[in-house]
Amino acid sequence: MMLEVRKIGEVKSRFKEPGDPYEMRQYESEIIIETEFVDGLYKIEDYKHLQIIFHFHQSVGYKLIGPRRYGPERGVFASRSPKRPSPIAVTTVELIERKDNVLRVKGLDAIDGTPVLDSKPYSHEIDKNKVERSI
Amino acid sequence: MMLEVRKIGEVKSRFKEPGDPYEMRQYESEIIIETEFVDGLYKIEDYKHLQIIFHFHQSVGYKLIGPRRYGPERGVFASRSPKRPSPIAVTTVELIERKDNVLRVKGLDAIDGTPVLDSKPYSHEIDKNKVERSI
Repeated sequence: MMLEVRKIGEVKSRFKEPGDPYEMRQYESEIIIETEFVDGLYKIEDYKHLQIIFHFHQSVGYKLIGPRRYGPERGVFASRSPKRPSPIAVTTVELIERKDNVLRVKGLDAIDGTPVLDSKPYSHEIDKNKVERSI
Repeated sequence: MMLEVRKIGEVKSRFKEPGDPYEMRQYESEIIIETEFVDGLYKIEDYKHLQIIFHFHQSVGYKLIGPRRYGPERGVFASRSPKRPSPIAVTTVELIERKDNVLRVKGLDAIDGTPVLDSKPYSHEIDKNKVERSI
């Protein structure tokens, strides 16, 4: 199916090619918000953590069962592989600073030029759901 | 922009109309995975928490700045409102049981009939990002 979304901004990162996401999350990067969407950032500075939704724009195709970067074979819905039926990524980042239309964040595992589709404030209630065990 | 995604399944819930998401998250619901995507669930039982990505399929339009359900006016990117430029929802749920193509989960704030686009195992590393403060 085709989903109507808006590209609200673009990632500016030192990482120009897909690499180790664990390494990528150690660095700061920027999200440049399109001028028409800047008003949507109103009071975003009140939050320390944001959930960034972005497009795995270089992802092509997928396997329903495949090897993971670390560990044994798993189904794609039990994996964070970028090659998915719906190439949508979600990563929680720390908001370091907002300056006009630029969000400086830490922890984003997206390469330079990645289209950003959404930002939501992180919520313990919605995102953590009393997690005790996880990967 | 139009994003090519796949509807991998559909929510079966006691909630037929949008209601209080806090209340909705107290109950169990089911995600019925389409037959063609069932192999993608391989070993999903190993995870206790899943991040479910779904389509806010009843959402129409959005305001860049608007009132929230609770609290003062904020930008849409500092809010979890379903009315967004990209109507994509993310909620972390507890996986109670998987039976063939049916995931029984707790904590999903999606109404009956909601199209599910993706499931990912919850990861402290990617989703929590050392969160100390949040909404």
